[in-house]
Amino acid sequence: MIIDSHGHYTTAPTAHNEWRESQLDAFLTGQAAPAYPTITDDEIRETIEQNQLRLLTERGADMTIFSPRASAMAHHEGDLAVGSSWARACNDLIARVVDLFPDTFIGVCQLPQFAGDPLDAAVAELERCVGMGFVGLNLNPDPSGGRWSSPPLTDRYWYPMYEKMVELDVPAMVHVSASCTPVFHATGAHYINADTTAFMQLLQGDLFGDFPALRLVIPHGGGAVPYHWGRYRGLADMLKKPPLATHLMQNVFFDTCVYHQPGIDLLFEVIDVDNILFGSEMVGAVRGIDPTTGYYFDDTKRYVDALDLSDVDRTKVYSGNARRVYPRLDASLRAKGL
Amino acid sequence: MIIDSHGHYTTAPTAHNEWRESQLDAFLTGQAAPAYPTITDDEIRETIEQNQLRLLTERGADMTIFSPRASAMAHHEGDLAVGSSWARACNDLIARVVDLFPDTFIGVCQLPQFAGDPLDAAVAELERCVGMGFVGLNLNPDPSGGRWSSPPLTDRYWYPMYEKMVELDVPAMVHVSASCTPVFHATGAHYINADTTAFMQLLQGDLFGDFPALRLVIPHGGGAVPYHWGRYRGLADMLKKPPLATHLMQNVFFDTCVYHQPGIDLLFEVIDVDNILFGSEMVGAVRGIDPTTGYYFDDTKRYVDALDLSDVDRTKVYSGNARRVYPRLDASLRAKGL
Repeated sequence: MIIDSHGHYTTAPTAHNEWRESQLDAFLTGQAAPAYPTITDDEIRETIEQNQLRLLTERGADMTIFSPRASAMAHHEGDLAVGSSWARACNDLIARVVDLFPDTFIGVCQLPQFAGDPLDAAVAELERCVGMGFVGLNLNPDPSGGRWSSPPLTDRYWYPMYEKMVELDVPAMVHVSASCTPVFHATGAHYINADTTAFMQLLQGDLFGDFPALRLVIPHGGGAVPYHWGRYRGLADMLKKPPLATHLMQNVFFDTCVYHQPGIDLLFEVIDVDNILFGSEMVGAVRGIDPTTGYYFDDTKRYVDALDLSDVDRTKVYSGNARRVYPRLDASLRAKGL
Repeated sequence: MIIDSHGHYTTAPTAHNEWRESQLDAFLTGQAAPAYPTITDDEIRETIEQNQLRLLTERGADMTIFSPRASAMAHHEGDLAVGSSWARACNDLIARVVDLFPDTFIGVCQLPQFAGDPLDAAVAELERCVGMGFVGLNLNPDPSGGRWSSPPLTDRYWYPMYEKMVELDVPAMVHVSASCTPVFHATGAHYINADTTAFMQLLQGDLFGDFPALRLVIPHGGGAVPYHWGRYRGLADMLKKPPLATHLMQNVFFDTCVYHQPGIDLLFEVIDVDNILFGSEMVGAVRGIDPTTGYYFDDTKRYVDALDLSDVDRTKVYSGNARRVYPRLDASLRAKGL
């Protein structure tokens, strides 16, 4: 079984995206948001069958841990109430995808977060989504959209979320959204910077001393971290922290959203195989075909298949680690005899 | 000949650093800054001989392209006048190091930059320093210190500096300074993020269409870029830019400040050898010994030595590329018969 741990509903029906626009327009003009539109099951089926499901089949993966489009979370738009309605709409749409394709998708939720506001609404939405069968959440370390106005992930500001995550036994993928500054291109700078930043925040703190059962997935292959693994080992030493293996790597996981073979080779050379989850971010940030290979840049399964891994390790990367990090996914699969 | 392209005077005499503190104190209380202290040649000699020169000799390199301590540039402190005095003091100290050790060090200057202010003072200081024999400059893409309030490097705001650089035939290393936000650890997040951000800004624009002779060095092995080289190739394609080889890589160079062998291996696997300059950032960000090798993390010469490079390519990385990117360094060496 091959589980893609990182997929977003980037192909949601047009009516969903148009409602978001009208919701934000209504906010800006002080009006009530319009009613959420009717979207038929067929419309949802079509957006999935022509995109994620087609590519999953073509590439030979079995299922995707599926969440709303990351760049469209846009926590910096509107206010917390607007973000709460938007998160509910996005998560309800994910739940419908999962209902329509229960063997192929399982849900991860978007949270209502607004920079400076407490996390109560986010905690409540997480509980609601787990009640619908979701198995994890996307946590935005910078809901300001590139202004970085929130405290580091090790700050007690975030603890109510971590407490709920531990209680529900769900992990978070640390994932920013759109950038509202021209300085940071979203998928080319802001995403990767956020991954690097999150890891360094965790390195400086002792979050897993307080939450030994907490699990965080840092996507996009861990940002710059594996490439600079010596720098991070050295900084841990300079900051008098324990070695990374014990300080962070019981609780932090990277995915394989690295879009060329040398990057995947490096990832597996420096990061323990127990900490790597297969992922593609498909259909996502980079949609073209690599002229040097003739295959899609984000067909990360090809890169993983090309590694000289034992069967045991390959199973870990393709399914075992995801089932361990997302226990509710594991329970769901077991209930199906998988 | 082995040229370390990336060294900072991180071991400057205490009196120099204390003056900076008193200068900032004076600014905050509305007083005039005290006179710059007397620092003897022997004091400078001692700080160099016990540190950079000792390590250069131990590691087997010949000279360093030397600039003021990057984290102490702190362009966000004080105002432009304060920053101008500080840049002059730092650059004058570098000039004295070069005068005392002319065969071992050559200068790169710090600029007076203040977020939102024009670059006239920076251009003037660059001209002054080149007049003293400096061969390049450090350009801070975020003089706000982590707030990222300046426009992208492709914005016309920066053009007066690029025009002067082309006129003087000097390259810039794109190098941020301290972070004034707890979100970004300076050497573990802000530096690496800035490298990644700068590259993506250049990818989005067409700066080298306007300045075909401009040369920019992105330090720390190019941030996250080589690890995510497929992502950047794919984004160039999505943004309808030319391939990176022609769009950027005639003008952009990376150094070898990557502190473990797998990272250096990847750098050389994906980046053309003509674009890689040997550098260590010594004495710098990571000062300890790697327990897995028994050698200093930042002894990057070991990693480069371990590569299977031809003599021609090794010479490029160790000196030829630096002499090409910094023509005034080349002229200085030629004048010495080197």
